[in-house]
Amino acid sequence: MYRIELFDYSINFGTLPKITHDGKVLIISNPKISGLHMQKLLKNIQAREIYICTIDDGEEYKTMASVESILQSAFNHKLDRKSLFIAFGGGVIGDIVGFSAGIFMRGIPFIQIPTTLLSQVDSSIGGKVGINNNYGKNLIGLFNQPKEVFIDESFLKTLPSREFNSGFAEIIKMAVCFDKEFFLQLHKYDDKNLLDTIKMAVRIKAKIVKEDEKENGIRAALNYGHTFAHAIELETNYKKLLHGEAVSIGMVMANSLALKLNLISNEESQNIKNLLEAFNLPTTYKINNINNFKSLMLLDKKSQNNKIKFVLPKGIGSFALNDDVSDLILDEVLREFA
Amino acid sequence: MYRIELFDYSINFGTLPKITHDGKVLIISNPKISGLHMQKLLKNIQAREIYICTIDDGEEYKTMASVESILQSAFNHKLDRKSLFIAFGGGVIGDIVGFSAGIFMRGIPFIQIPTTLLSQVDSSIGGKVGINNNYGKNLIGLFNQPKEVFIDESFLKTLPSREFNSGFAEIIKMAVCFDKEFFLQLHKYDDKNLLDTIKMAVRIKAKIVKEDEKENGIRAALNYGHTFAHAIELETNYKKLLHGEAVSIGMVMANSLALKLNLISNEESQNIKNLLEAFNLPTTYKINNINNFKSLMLLDKKSQNNKIKFVLPKGIGSFALNDDVSDLILDEVLREFA
Repeated sequence: MYRIELFDYSINFGTLPKITHDGKVLIISNPKISGLHMQKLLKNIQAREIYICTIDDGEEYKTMASVESILQSAFNHKLDRKSLFIAFGGGVIGDIVGFSAGIFMRGIPFIQIPTTLLSQVDSSIGGKVGINNNYGKNLIGLFNQPKEVFIDESFLKTLPSREFNSGFAEIIKMAVCFDKEFFLQLHKYDDKNLLDTIKMAVRIKAKIVKEDEKENGIRAALNYGHTFAHAIELETNYKKLLHGEAVSIGMVMANSLALKLNLISNEESQNIKNLLEAFNLPTTYKINNINNFKSLMLLDKKSQNNKIKFVLPKGIGSFALNDDVSDLILDEVLREFA
Repeated sequence: MYRIELFDYSINFGTLPKITHDGKVLIISNPKISGLHMQKLLKNIQAREIYICTIDDGEEYKTMASVESILQSAFNHKLDRKSLFIAFGGGVIGDIVGFSAGIFMRGIPFIQIPTTLLSQVDSSIGGKVGINNNYGKNLIGLFNQPKEVFIDESFLKTLPSREFNSGFAEIIKMAVCFDKEFFLQLHKYDDKNLLDTIKMAVRIKAKIVKEDEKENGIRAALNYGHTFAHAIELETNYKKLLHGEAVSIGMVMANSLALKLNLISNEESQNIKNLLEAFNLPTTYKINNINNFKSLMLLDKKSQNNKIKFVLPKGIGSFALNDDVSDLILDEVLREFA
């Protein structure tokens, strides 16, 4: 089994192996993944007692209410400090479960078994967990590393193609900021390369996280496209677009800013847009109200003292952070999308 | 200024010094402490912007709802990752604020300024933070160390004597488990020794916490009396007794068990009881329903696989952990209080 080591745990690739735990296990999943794949998971777990708890899927359920329902289930079944949570689903499940495990009895271990491309290449890796609230995305949370991650690409066979493509937005994000060769390879992507592509993306992400777990520096670059995307998701109430789709648009917006600041060329900007579109990702958006959109961007966790910190590509394969963009230039960019 | 170092921060004793912070500060307090002492605190803080948020006092407010109201206030005033929370109050305030700071934007720093004896000698030290829920005390929480602790005994002048005495329960707890000489000194306690007594208790606690931050071993001994106390507090809905009072009764119950297991002598047990009573702490209690009481004890975080882990004194100045007490003996102990 191919492994990538991160801190004191492994990210394991390939067919899900046996998981044994000397204590109680609570699996948290969503109704759809439970129906499709719970049988396979249960067959692979050996534990003192196993419980299953399902949470409705979608960003709008990444809330404190869902956390409380997981904790309720854990208390009802008398889980204790020797117990284990397993997150079995996409990014929403992984984020809520990692947060719940971090605060249940001051922290118990959890395992990530991501079942979407987006969570396999990005959200299950690196220990950022948390929930959304009225003020924005992931504003309440923890850095809480899992005990182990299992990436079994066979779960992706049942993934709707729109969700599959959404995962590619995060893969492209990593290539643009960190690895030009990977970016070029993605132009020749073919389903046969799926597992290798996932491994490559995880390798990049794990390297960044290892260098900067708490996001004091380089890890911020993983938010390329995200400051814009979070505002888009808030404006559309998380309802119209998948996360990766919003990130795709956000990258195009960031590119427009990078272009004005002479960080990338017109051709590079066009290349990124073409690659996004090759994966059927959206690259246009109509902003409702520019001032409102800016105030939503300010809610981003990277903002400090009322300044938005932008992550921008610097050519292909590198990036720049800029928290000193003039209102004039930002307005110009946003007007292109209004 | 006298200091005790713990991990990478200081516990400072004496008159509250100037606190400066290059960012926004949110002070969280309760209405009473705000009225009595906020002026003094505000005079001592220099920050970019200062906000105050009050939470009603009492264990029944140590809930997720209070956490959400603190976070709401932080988001409303656009606090960011460079901001600071200050906990200004007793143990309830310290616990909620430490938890809120730990999950706000995945963690920002917080300062503890405890204003009760109990929080000065115990709860503000060591980074255990969290909230209660229907299932029990502190069942949701984190290990989250503060950035700094300031212990100014002048705040205790306005403390009602019942609350003051309640703090002594925790001081006696530490003496019984860890320091026979300190136990003997406490018999000669006089108000002139207050600051020295606080320092001694904090020194003991800091030493234990440094050795075992995450409570994998010795730190559990700080829970002497607490497994019984938590059940008492649940049975009385946190309403009849102060925490230290419940702990006082819990220690007497633990002593009765220790006596039956030949861990302490009758005389030692009586000495502890006398010392508690010298500080006007309660030592008797009437259990409503023994089976119910036992199931409440099982909700303790130390319980694993349906076994209660007891912390028991071993003579004076030492302790024993025991998770193999027979139901027969436990029933005998509880019947003494029924």
